[in-house]
This record gives sequence, structure tokens and C-alpha cells, in this order.
Amino acid sequence: MICWLNGVFCPIEQARIDPRDRGFLLGDGVFETLLAVDGTMLHANRHLARLSGAAELLGITIVFSESEISAAMINLLKENQLVSGRVALRLTLTRGVGARGVAPPLEVAPTILMTAVSAPPPPPHMRAMISSYVRNEKSISSRIKSLNYLDNVMARHEAVLQGVDEALMCNTNGDIACASTANLFMVADGALYTPSLNAGALSGIMRGIILEAALTQNVPIIEGPITRAALSRADEAFLSNALIGICPLIEIDGAPVGSGVTGPITRRLRLA
Amino acid sequence: MICWLNGVFCPIEQARIDPRDRGFLLGDGVFETLLAVDGTMLHANRHLARLSGAAELLGITIVFSESEISAAMINLLKENQLVSGRVALRLTLTRGVGARGVAPPLEVAPTILMTAVSAPPPPPHMRAMISSYVRNEKSISSRIKSLNYLDNVMARHEAVLQGVDEALMCNTNGDIACASTANLFMVADGALYTPSLNAGALSGIMRGIILEAALTQNVPIIEGPITRAALSRADEAFLSNALIGICPLIEIDGAPVGSGVTGPITRRLRLA
Repeated sequence: MICWLNGVFCPIEQARIDPRDRGFLLGDGVFETLLAVDGTMLHANRHLARLSGAAELLGITIVFSESEISAAMINLLKENQLVSGRVALRLTLTRGVGARGVAPPLEVAPTILMTAVSAPPPPPHMRAMISSYVRNEKSISSRIKSLNYLDNVMARHEAVLQGVDEALMCNTNGDIACASTANLFMVADGALYTPSLNAGALSGIMRGIILEAALTQNVPIIEGPITRAALSRADEAFLSNALIGICPLIEIDGAPVGSGVTGPITRRLRLA
Repeated sequence: MICWLNGVFCPIEQARIDPRDRGFLLGDGVFETLLAVDGTMLHANRHLARLSGAAELLGITIVFSESEISAAMINLLKENQLVSGRVALRLTLTRGVGARGVAPPLEVAPTILMTAVSAPPPPPHMRAMISSYVRNEKSISSRIKSLNYLDNVMARHEAVLQGVDEALMCNTNGDIACASTANLFMVADGALYTPSLNAGALSGIMRGIILEAALTQNVPIIEGPITRAALSRADEAFLSNALIGICPLIEIDGAPVGSGVTGPITRRLRLA
């Protein structure tokens, strides 16, 4: 695999992250996961805008312009002969190498890395469990796609041990916030519900696209807290992220969601 | 600087962390910071026991024995000609290189890194502010010294911008949990108070040693929530970690703590 590291294409086996990189030592950075289909990046502008916002919040400078990064993405696909089919591209940005200590250094050269791998087709549907790992809706890590993913890693591990596909994570209030790598939506009485950003949902790119589609389709939208009880009574539910798009959630903690098959509003939003 | 990476000593400029390391990509790992004085590691056994517990919680195998790691620490000091004076040693353990995705891989070789740098003498006292960044006492990251340090990084940055030394972090309940890189203690009416682990305090090695010393010195100990109001009325306060030991906290948000100088119980515990 060829990666793009600080402006240079090289085989990943030769690419070197410095052991003093604050991304490695402190999780001091952010990332984006994007989907390319047949050589075209999907919603790259939205992903780069989100990255840019997160970098600004953390005070990390992106030394490449959006058009330079976009060009590098396309070249990365070519370098890896991934110009056809589905490809997952990951862009990682860290504050870079610093001296010992937690305080961000004044002068620092950020690290930027892109990798691309062939992505499997999205699963037809998913089963989930409710994780014991908690999402901190009050942390900066729940507002940006930071490198602080340990709660999500452990939540997903819990799901794998239970033999299901995803882990739903509750916030500190006990309400549903998101899944370990996806946003959650549910349908009840014809309306579309999704946890608000205040409730700990990440501002997913696909989440934004789905909310826009629902608006166009005249599906009422309620962004707010979703209790476990409300979710258990949902007619439909689905998960979303850049790679799976909209994926029906047919079972939670062993109980079917609604009728246990893909519901009509999920189908309508997928088509839209 | 010579580092120790997966059993091999090498100049840090030549040491390579793989860009696919889950420590770098997801914060999937833990670390320890230890103090060496004149070639002797302080409390190495306690640090290695805590590391071992954290690794077990995350399901990461440490492929070196405690005695191998202890020997490597001493050799690392020698390799860097740091056998006299104060030295900060950092031990970083990650789950290692994995394929794309959040779920921990079944077969994975963990990464273990040690670095050592000369440490300045501890400051005579510190000033702190109360940060707007929140510590999630419900996260696994508050129970172990994980690589997910972004909240702490940003809290410390806030302190630096305000011109003070440390940032105190509140938990999701609004009570004081800890500082960005230290545990907090306060003294009121002759008793020693410190946030409990349930309140979001990290189980600091120095914290444990201080509690043992207080017991020996017949100082009453109260582990529990510390409100901001209670802290503002404290007679004395101090911060602790492996590098600073016990460091008097003489000012919080511009207001002096107690009489604004090192208090008698702080002095007694320091001597002990």
C-alpha cells in the first residue's frame, strides 16, 4: 500500500511516524474517513470542511490547501490502483512532534497522513447491542472526530464478543448518543429521530446528508435525546456513516426493531 | 536521544512507529511516566503493576516481563548518559498495527516504547485555573492512563493562555476530578481531601503514596467528591504526580488558597 505522508507518496512499510508525535503519545489530533467510488471521492468538500473546523478548534494548522489535499486523494487512489470499486480513505492530522509534556508546543509542524484501502460492500443490515462504555457528550472528543477512540474501540470489542455488528453508546445521562463508528436514527410514528450533537452525536457527514434528504422528503425530524425506552419502541432504526451510507438496524440487544426488516422510511431515505 | 522500541535500543530519529499503529490512529493504548533520580527508578514496581492492570483491562499483552522492562529502563538511562540527576521516563504501550477499523484485531503484536529525558526540578509551587474542559469519570480513559489525552491537552493549553501552571478539570457532575497532569489534594480543618476514583481521579502512583503517608501521620483522609465551593474554602491544597511529587497549589482562578503559602500539613506530608 502506498500512503501519502506530509506531501510525499511512499510505501506504508517505509513511512515513519516519529515516536515523539503527539498523535501517538497523547491522541492530539483528528481524522476523517471518506468513501471513494470508482475513483471519485464522495462529499470530499464536506469532510475537508469538518477537518478544517476541528483543526481550528484544536489550534492545529493544516499546511496543505483543500485543493492540494483533494488532488492528493485522487493521486493516492491512482498510486494504489484503486480507481474502480469502493475505497475507504483515511486522513489523519496530528499536532506533530513535540517535546515531553502535555502543553501544546508553540512551534510545531503538524503530521498529515492519508491511506486508502479497498472497502467491502456495506452489509444489508446490522444487529447491535447497547454498550457499557459511555460517551462523554461534554468532551471535545465528542464534538470532533478526534484520535481519542478508546471508548469506541472497547465498545466495539464488546459487540464483537456478543456476536453482533455494532455497539450503541449512551451518553453520561444514559441516553443513546451514537454507535461506535456510526450515527443512529430511529423512526417512530412517521417521524425521524436522531440524537442531537448536545447528546453526544458526532456531526457525521452522512448524518447531515440524511437530515437534508428527510427535509426534502417532508419527513418530520426531531433532533434530541433518545432514551433506551424510546429506541426499544421504534418502528424502524438505521445506522449511518460515510462507508455504510444508511444501514438498517434490525435488532438491538436480541430484540427485533419494529418488524425486524428494513422499514419504509429507511427505504425512502436510502433512495433519496 | 536513544529510545527503546520493542526490545531494541536505537536513536529516536531512526525509530519508526508504523502509520497503521492503533496507538497513533485510535489512541488504543496506555502509558506511564516515571521519575529516575541518580540512576534509580522510583516506584517502578507500582508503575509496572498499574501498566499491567491497564493492559489487562484493554486486552493488550505485554510481551516483556517486568524484570526485562526494569532492566531496559536502567539501560536506557545508561545509553542516554542520564545516570545522574532527575530523569523523566515514559513507557508507552499500544495494541500495535492493525487493519483498518475500530474493532481490535484478533492477532496483533503490541508496540512498546520507552524514552528518557532530563527532568527539571519541580516548581516550588503552582497556580491553577479551573478549566472548561470536562473529565468523563464514566470513561475507561479516566480509570487508566490511556493515550486519550486530548481533553487534558486542551485544558492545559487553556491554563497556559491564562498564564498559570495547571488546569483543574471538573467531572461531568461539576465536581473537581484532577489537574491536567496531576492529582489534587486539599486540606480543611486538619483533614486531607482528595477526589475519589469514582469522581474521575486517576489512580496516581504518588496519590497512593501520599494516602499511605497520611495514614502513617494520622492525618484523617476523606476520598470523595470535592466541590468547587469546598475547594475555594480550603486551608491548603497541593498537586501530585510522579515528577513533581507534592507541589503546593497556592492560587486558584486568581484567588489565594488558604494563606497563599505552603501549609503545615502539605509540609508534613512532603517530609514524610
